[in-house]
Amino acid sequence: MDTPQLTLMRALSVKTPSRILLVVLDGIGDLPVDGRTPLEAARTPNLDTLARGAMLGLSTAVAPGVTPGSGPGHLALFGYDPLVFEIGRGVLSALGIGLDLGRRDVAARGNFATLGPDGTIVDRRAGRIPTALNQELVARLRAAIPRIDDVGVAIYTESEYRFVVVFSGDGLSDEVLDADPQMTGVPAQEARPRTDNPAAARLASVANRFIELATEVLADAYPANTALLRGFARLPDLPPMSDVYHLTAGAIASYPMYRGLGRLVGMSLVPVDLRGAGEQLEAKVEAYREHHAGYDFIYFHIKKTDSYGEDGDFEAKVHAIEDFDAALPALLAPEPEVVAITGDHSTPVALRSHSWHPLPVLISSRFGRPGLAGARFTERDCATGPLGHIRHLDLMPLLLANALKLKKFGA
Amino acid sequence: MDTPQLTLMRALSVKTPSRILLVVLDGIGDLPVDGRTPLEAARTPNLDTLARGAMLGLSTAVAPGVTPGSGPGHLALFGYDPLVFEIGRGVLSALGIGLDLGRRDVAARGNFATLGPDGTIVDRRAGRIPTALNQELVARLRAAIPRIDDVGVAIYTESEYRFVVVFSGDGLSDEVLDADPQMTGVPAQEARPRTDNPAAARLASVANRFIELATEVLADAYPANTALLRGFARLPDLPPMSDVYHLTAGAIASYPMYRGLGRLVGMSLVPVDLRGAGEQLEAKVEAYREHHAGYDFIYFHIKKTDSYGEDGDFEAKVHAIEDFDAALPALLAPEPEVVAITGDHSTPVALRSHSWHPLPVLISSRFGRPGLAGARFTERDCATGPLGHIRHLDLMPLLLANALKLKKFGA
Repeated sequence: MDTPQLTLMRALSVKTPSRILLVVLDGIGDLPVDGRTPLEAARTPNLDTLARGAMLGLSTAVAPGVTPGSGPGHLALFGYDPLVFEIGRGVLSALGIGLDLGRRDVAARGNFATLGPDGTIVDRRAGRIPTALNQELVARLRAAIPRIDDVGVAIYTESEYRFVVVFSGDGLSDEVLDADPQMTGVPAQEARPRTDNPAAARLASVANRFIELATEVLADAYPANTALLRGFARLPDLPPMSDVYHLTAGAIASYPMYRGLGRLVGMSLVPVDLRGAGEQLEAKVEAYREHHAGYDFIYFHIKKTDSYGEDGDFEAKVHAIEDFDAALPALLAPEPEVVAITGDHSTPVALRSHSWHPLPVLISSRFGRPGLAGARFTERDCATGPLGHIRHLDLMPLLLANALKLKKFGA
Repeated sequence: MDTPQLTLMRALSVKTPSRILLVVLDGIGDLPVDGRTPLEAARTPNLDTLARGAMLGLSTAVAPGVTPGSGPGHLALFGYDPLVFEIGRGVLSALGIGLDLGRRDVAARGNFATLGPDGTIVDRRAGRIPTALNQELVARLRAAIPRIDDVGVAIYTESEYRFVVVFSGDGLSDEVLDADPQMTGVPAQEARPRTDNPAAARLASVANRFIELATEVLADAYPANTALLRGFARLPDLPPMSDVYHLTAGAIASYPMYRGLGRLVGMSLVPVDLRGAGEQLEAKVEAYREHHAGYDFIYFHIKKTDSYGEDGDFEAKVHAIEDFDAALPALLAPEPEVVAITGDHSTPVALRSHSWHPLPVLISSRFGRPGLAGARFTERDCATGPLGHIRHLDLMPLLLANALKLKKFGA
C-alpha cells in the first residue's frame, strides 16, 4: 500500500550513483537545563563546521504535540506516514530482540504475571523476576507448547518479566484485543477478536489456549504463575525503499530494534564488526567507511543520546554528543553527497522520556542554501534555520532532491 | 471539481473593488554562487523599498523536495492543487504555441524521428531538423491527413523536431499510453489504452493510424521519416477563478504558454501591444497601467529570470532582475491594493534547470506585518521573514484576505 507521497516518490525517483547518509541521533532533541540544552552545552567543533555549510531547520516527528515511539519516529524519517502504517507492540518487541518475522507470523508481547487464588491478577509483572528466571521459564514453556493445533508457537525471553511469543500459521489475523486487563485486582482477560474476520477468532482462540497451557506449566512458579499477552501484531505491509525510492538502502545500528526498523522498510543490514555490547560507535563508523560504496542510502543509528535522556543524565548526554562529534570526521571521510543529521524524537533530560518537541535537523549538500553565519546544530539555532519547520515525512523527498534523485514533476 | 480549499474559497470570497497584482518572476529562486544568489547580487532599490513595507516569506511550490514543471508551479500559485489537477504534456505543448483547445480535443506532443531499415527507432529527434523543414513537413502532413474516420486531425509546428497534433471528436479519451519508446534501437511503440474505457481504445487506434499515415507521407523525408507521439492529454477540468474566487482575472504574459496557463483557470488575456518577440517588459507594464481598472486580479509574468537560470548565466539573471526592478515604479503606479511577487519554481544557475528549492515571496498590503528592518527580497532574508514558510497553495487565500475579499469563516 502507498500513501500519496510514496506514490509520488515512486513516480519521480531515479537511480543515480549519489550517496545519502542519514544519521539518527536517537532522542537528540532536548530542553534547556540552566539555560542550555545538551546540544548547546556540548563542544562540537566538527558538527559546527558541518553546520556552517549546511541547511538547518526543525522537524516535527509525527504531528504537533504528538510524542512518538521509536517505531513511528523512524517510519516518518524513512517517509512512511506513521499515522497510516502501524507497527504493533508485538512486532516492535520481536524486532527489539532481533527476531526475523515472516508473513505468516503474529507476534505478541508477553508478561509473566501473578495470578491470585481468587483468579484475579495480583501483579502484572510477577515481582519483576530476574532475566535468568525468565529464561528458565521460557525453556519450560517451549518444551511444553511447541504448537497449538496446526499453529507453531515460539517463545523468546526479552528481559525480566517480559517475553515475546510468535504464532505461525496460515490465515492468522492480528485483529485481536489484548489478553491483559492492564490493571490488578481483576480477573485475567481473554483474547477476543476485534473484527468479524474468522482468522481473528482463530488467533484469539489459539492465544487463549496458550495462556491456559502456560498457566498449567507455570502452576508451581509463583509469582510467575501465569502469562498476559498484548499487542498482537503482524508485520506492517510497508513497500520497500528499493521500490518506492529506487534506493539500495542499508542500516548501521548496534541495537536489534533499530536494525529491525530498517529491515521493515527493506534495508539490508550493513555488516558491523560488533566487538561487544552497547553503542559500538567505532565499529559502526568503520562499517560505514568500508561499505558506503555499496549503498546509495545508509541509515546510521546512535542510541546513547536517547538512553541518557531517559536516564535524566544531562552530562552523559552531552558526552554522548561529544563522542559522536569526535567520530564525525572519520564518518564523513567517504564524502557522501548528502548528509542529514536529526533524531527520531526528542528525549529531554528534564522529562526522562520521549517528547513531542520538534527535532533539530541538518542537511548538508552541494545544493543547500546557507543560513546565518555561526549557527550551530542546536534546537535554538535550528528554529530559525533556512530549512524552516518541516515534518519528518518531508525529509526523504528533500534528501532525494538534494542527491538529484528526483525527476521533475509535470511539464 | 473542487479541492477542499477551492470549496472554502468559493464559500468565503466576495466581490470587492480592490485589485491584486501577482507578479511571477519565472524561476526566480536560486542558490549562492560565490556566496550570493542573483537576487542578492542584483541592485534592486525599488524592490528593496517595496520589501521594507511588505511581508516576506519562503514558499514551497508543490511539496518539499519536488521540482515542479511550469504547469504545476503556476497551478499551485493560482490555488489549484497540482497533485490533484494534472496538465498533460500534450496540453502544455499546445498552450506553448498558443493553441486554443476545446473540450472535444486531445493534444499530443509529436517528435519527427528516424526509423531505420530494420524498423527500429534510430534517432528520436530526427537529427534535430531545422524549424523550416519542420514547417514544410507539417504542411505535407496537414494536406495528407485532415481527418481519420470522423476525428479531425490538426498538426502544428512547435520548433526543430517538435510538433503538436490535436485530435478532435466526440467521445475521445486521453487515457492512452505514449506511442514513443523513449529510447533508440528498439521498434516504434504503438499507442495503447491505459484503461478499459472504449474511448481510450478509440483514440489509441486513431493515433496509431496517424503514425502509420504519417510514416507513409514522410517515406522520402529521411531522417524525419516517422513520428512519435506522447503525452496524450485533454484540457484539465479546472473551475474558473471567476467561480471559485469571484474574481475578474487577467493575464499579462508575452510567451504563449503562460497566457495559456492563465486561460486554463479562466483568466482573460489583457491585451499587450507586443512589438516583437521576447520579454516585452515595457509593453507589459504599459498594458497593466492601461487595463488594471478592469480587473480585480492580474497575473503578470516575467520569463527571462527562468531562461537565464536555464542557461546557467548568473550575470544575465542579475540583469533580468535589475530590469524588472527598474520597471517596478511604473508597474506599481496604479497602486494596486495588494501586490505579491514570487516565482513558479526555482531555476538555480548552478543547476541550469528547475529545482525544488522554496521561492522567496513578498506580499505588500496595508494589512501586512513588517519584518526585520533592511530585509530584502532574497532567498536568505525571506527564509526568516514574518510570513514564514508557506506553500504556493496558501498564496491565493492570503492575497484575497489582504485584499479584504474573504468573509469570516463560521460564526
